[in-house]
Amino acid sequence: MRMLATANEGDTHGYGDDPWTERVSQDLCARFGAADAYFVFNGTGANVVGLSLLVRPFEAVICAESAHLNTDECGAPERLLGSKLLTVATPDGKLTPDLVATRLVGLGDEHRAQPRAVCITQATELGTCYSLAELQALGEFCSAHQLSLYIDGARLANAAAYLGCSLAELATQADVLSFGGTKNGAVAAEAVIVMNPGLTEAVPYQRKQLLQLGSKMRFFAAQFAALLENEIWLGNATQANLMAQRLAAGLRGMDITIRYPVESNGVFAVLDPRLIEPLQREWGFYVWDEPNIVRLMTAFDTTPDDVDAFLASLREAALSHV
Amino acid sequence: MRMLATANEGDTHGYGDDPWTERVSQDLCARFGAADAYFVFNGTGANVVGLSLLVRPFEAVICAESAHLNTDECGAPERLLGSKLLTVATPDGKLTPDLVATRLVGLGDEHRAQPRAVCITQATELGTCYSLAELQALGEFCSAHQLSLYIDGARLANAAAYLGCSLAELATQADVLSFGGTKNGAVAAEAVIVMNPGLTEAVPYQRKQLLQLGSKMRFFAAQFAALLENEIWLGNATQANLMAQRLAAGLRGMDITIRYPVESNGVFAVLDPRLIEPLQREWGFYVWDEPNIVRLMTAFDTTPDDVDAFLASLREAALSHV
Amino acid sequence: MRMLATANEGDTHGYGDDPWTERVSQDLCARFGAADAYFVFNGTGANVVGLSLLVRPFEAVICAESAHLNTDECGAPERLLGSKLLTVATPDGKLTPDLVATRLVGLGDEHRAQPRAVCITQATELGTCYSLAELQALGEFCSAHQLSLYIDGARLANAAAYLGCSLAELATQADVLSFGGTKNGAVAAEAVIVMNPGLTEAVPYQRKQLLQLGSKMRFFAAQFAALLENEIWLGNATQANLMAQRLAAGLRGMDITIRYPVESNGVFAVLDPRLIEPLQREWGFYVWDEPNIVRLMTAFDTTPDDVDAFLASLREAALSHV
Amino acid sequence: MRMLATANEGDTHGYGDDPWTERVSQDLCARFGAADAYFVFNGTGANVVGLSLLVRPFEAVICAESAHLNTDECGAPERLLGSKLLTVATPDGKLTPDLVATRLVGLGDEHRAQPRAVCITQATELGTCYSLAELQALGEFCSAHQLSLYIDGARLANAAAYLGCSLAELATQADVLSFGGTKNGAVAAEAVIVMNPGLTEAVPYQRKQLLQLGSKMRFFAAQFAALLENEIWLGNATQANLMAQRLAAGLRGMDITIRYPVESNGVFAVLDPRLIEPLQREWGFYVWDEPNIVRLMTAFDTTPDDVDAFLASLREAALSHV
Repeated sequence: MRMLATANEGDTHGYGDDPWTERVSQDLCARFGAADAYFVFNGTGANVVGLSLLVRPFEAVICAESAHLNTDECGAPERLLGSKLLTVATPDGKLTPDLVATRLVGLGDEHRAQPRAVCITQATELGTCYSLAELQALGEFCSAHQLSLYIDGARLANAAAYLGCSLAELATQADVLSFGGTKNGAVAAEAVIVMNPGLTEAVPYQRKQLLQLGSKMRFFAAQFAALLENEIWLGNATQANLMAQRLAAGLRGMDITIRYPVESNGVFAVLDPRLIEPLQREWGFYVWDEPNIVRLMTAFDTTPDDVDAFLASLREAALSHV
Repeated sequence: MRMLATANEGDTHGYGDDPWTERVSQDLCARFGAADAYFVFNGTGANVVGLSLLVRPFEAVICAESAHLNTDECGAPERLLGSKLLTVATPDGKLTPDLVATRLVGLGDEHRAQPRAVCITQATELGTCYSLAELQALGEFCSAHQLSLYIDGARLANAAAYLGCSLAELATQADVLSFGGTKNGAVAAEAVIVMNPGLTEAVPYQRKQLLQLGSKMRFFAAQFAALLENEIWLGNATQANLMAQRLAAGLRGMDITIRYPVESNGVFAVLDPRLIEPLQREWGFYVWDEPNIVRLMTAFDTTPDDVDAFLASLREAALSHV
Repeated sequence: MRMLATANEGDTHGYGDDPWTERVSQDLCARFGAADAYFVFNGTGANVVGLSLLVRPFEAVICAESAHLNTDECGAPERLLGSKLLTVATPDGKLTPDLVATRLVGLGDEHRAQPRAVCITQATELGTCYSLAELQALGEFCSAHQLSLYIDGARLANAAAYLGCSLAELATQADVLSFGGTKNGAVAAEAVIVMNPGLTEAVPYQRKQLLQLGSKMRFFAAQFAALLENEIWLGNATQANLMAQRLAAGLRGMDITIRYPVESNGVFAVLDPRLIEPLQREWGFYVWDEPNIVRLMTAFDTTPDDVDAFLASLREAALSHV
Repeated sequence: MRMLATANEGDTHGYGDDPWTERVSQDLCARFGAADAYFVFNGTGANVVGLSLLVRPFEAVICAESAHLNTDECGAPERLLGSKLLTVATPDGKLTPDLVATRLVGLGDEHRAQPRAVCITQATELGTCYSLAELQALGEFCSAHQLSLYIDGARLANAAAYLGCSLAELATQADVLSFGGTKNGAVAAEAVIVMNPGLTEAVPYQRKQLLQLGSKMRFFAAQFAALLENEIWLGNATQANLMAQRLAAGLRGMDITIRYPVESNGVFAVLDPRLIEPLQREWGFYVWDEPNIVRLMTAFDTTPDDVDAFLASLREAALSHV
């Protein structure tokens, strides 16, 4: 907020041709070891702009069935890229070389959309993280099969906090990735990070044509400036992750089953279905796939008291259904 | 061929505004009980034009994982309609109301592509046919859930021959369907049959913009004229179906497992993988999903001698691998 | 800024399901007499979402050659809607029924994209405003010819200030219009105003699929809240318009020719080409169509001193080239 | 027709993997000096597939306002490529380097669709032909400005007949062009000729995804085989051109003004508007731009008697209106 107010002072050029944008995108490039960085409005926008650099309409993107790209973008990738998504069921939201290989069929057959990019999410939609070794294995597999690697990093900060590694280490295998600000405390700001220097030329046009260019881009850069200053981004992510750990511990203490390893800010819990609706009156969360699995997300501003209050609500609801 | 030559005589107007087109499309309308019928070049074109009448880009099409629409159209539906395909695994290529219902999630949620049409194939890509009762159940389910029903009828003639029913009976539940000529003996001709009279207005424009309008459309109408005359279409399909039965019987006689009921002109056989390559040197067929399942298709011009010769080749190959 | 900070307080639901969004969109509906109002990120986004409600891909949008839609959106309307723009040269950026009529050709001819919507800009890209009588004439022409009317209102506030009329009066002829916040002082916020109640159903999906939905939509509503409070939007626009008048008067006093009536916040001046580059070192403005016409835009925060300083710079540059 | 019957004999592989397709496309490559040649269904299909090799969605195609691409394809290029057409008014349907240069604005500006290809028609929609010198000038201009050159050759045969040059000479400046069979006597067959060897990789996928691949492609190759045999294509085009000359001479003999040089098979005549409707009852032709200009097209099967009969009809109609 403070940064937004600062960015509001003085006149400047529009459309990203301003010192804020320049400075913050350079900072991001340095941290990621990237060729360039571009600000966009939202996560779906970052994904579509990022993938627009990697696939033509007859080329397909391999992703997990549970990927945000597949389930939560209202078909934006298909409409805006013209490309098919080739989805893979995964046990934990993570692709592996073996899983990707199952969709490498029909290569060279004009009747089949040709697999050309792999999209993974870090941290995944199921709260898990790819280890650096897993990333490397995927990167090597992609290189060996002429596939580009895109990382949906809407919650990349949570992965960095969990893995204790640098942004550059997370990004090194990718051709392009996104770096999310919104889930990390920003008002609305995501970045498209281009690692492969051969891919920068088209970004400004794709971003504009895909409706992701604002005339006052400095305000979006400023949000990242605020997050990067004093490593607030990492503090925010660490706090969210810790609260997820606290939540998971509390749930386990109540003999509630947790699905998937808790490696970022999401906890998937198996609840008695009768408790869900009463809890939802007080707390905002989604029922996942099955009717008794709920997704509980912590955020940069979740406090221990919030977690404990939720656990208390749950205990109370459980008691009334014994 | 003879009909093509006749259509070649005399001058006429272009772009379907000719007596051939008029007469043959009226004949199709009468047979199907349809609002209108339009000629196009190929099966993928028929599917995309047909579905363009039913979905907007944020609306999705539910189809079987094995659907031609999903596997063999190089992503044309996604690129040209902007719509997402929501696929369902099926035991035999056929959707049921229960299977469709599994994809009716996220209704009213702006993050999800909204299911709006169901696409089934008759006969299916796995050689099975929907019975009239199954069609009625699907039609009623679609009506009850505000879904349109589209039938990919590239091999509708084979289904009519197998079920012994009229084209109108096959089409009555559909909003739009295709009727294939190419797999039934034509050079290149498919028809888009519009059952729902509220949907005809956009067809000419969609057909033109989707590259399916020829300036000499009479030649495509003439191909259907040839097929409809003396019910040649039904004779062709019956012949292909019978040859598939003969082939299946021969295979079963050799203790070869047949996958899926043989209800049209396709036979899926489990072969010793060592036999496949030698056989393919002489015969054209595809290996299906798994490495030892092959798809054997018969056609309107397949003869009993052809089938017997194939079986002989197979016997010979098998002997050399004992 | 203050409103953004207020919107930052307390937890709330995401994706526009929050009290800020609810309250501000109701306020907009009341002012416009609209069926509904939706927030988006930028002007191109507002235009594409708005027009997505009015045209199918084979239907075309008639607009002025000088329209932002045609010249400054990097082909987004064509890519994202699939629709053709039918452009018309205008003397002053304004369409008239007679000018629109020149593009009403090929109706019912499947080879031609079918004109279905008219897009006008208010105030126009050339700084002129449609009078209420001109709007009515266009609205009646559109109704009579089954055309929808869309208004690109990126600078609608400036038109309201110039014409001294209400937002409802400006909007009454339109099916859909945009209402710009960004050029009126907001960080990044535009609204899509839907007048025709039959068109609201698709908006949430089109907005999401077209990458214009943020998870923290309240911050975009809050920007409009700030502009609407105490009619700041109108004050800002009035200030910008007055400064344009002051600028035009100053230029005329220097015998500089002004192109187009000055009816909003833009002044198009014919300058000695030798003066342009020196001036651009100090002041940000664009050279328009011809090499000696420059577009000078004032803003909500332009002061009389700014205008006078620009005029002084110009005088100085002129002296040095005598 | 005879060739179609021959292509009908014997079994063969589908989707262009057959000896007819192989042989005829090699023949075309040899004649054009091309990297490869591909058969498609219609002229709009050829143009869209051809241009899909040259532009990305944010890149624009410069063409004449009168281009078939712009006026008669129902917006297919915009919908299917996502690209903007930048049109230029021309005196005679022909682009020149100077005319193309007028649309080379906003280069490097992300708000503008970036000009990347030039599309010309040979012979043009107004019946004129580019000379080899004009082609060379355009080709050099394109090379110098990083623009690709596409030729819509729906009536390329007529240009070859008029200019007395080889197909290779006509094609040498182009990156990609189409070669029309349909207007030259075929049932429905066009070829996409790829001159630039770096562009062939994507063609099969673009052709399939853009609905231009038939399963029995040999019948489309066979149509070209028939046209190429004994240079029938050239004889057909020469006949059509001669009949246009005869028609123009007859019209001039009646003191009727001819617009545009008659350089192929089209004659644009200024007729007394009262004569047009009576003539159209007997003869098929279109009224062009203005209400008194008609486009009279001759074809490969137009005879001197046809021309003379038309002139007699016209004389008769004129007498009755004296």
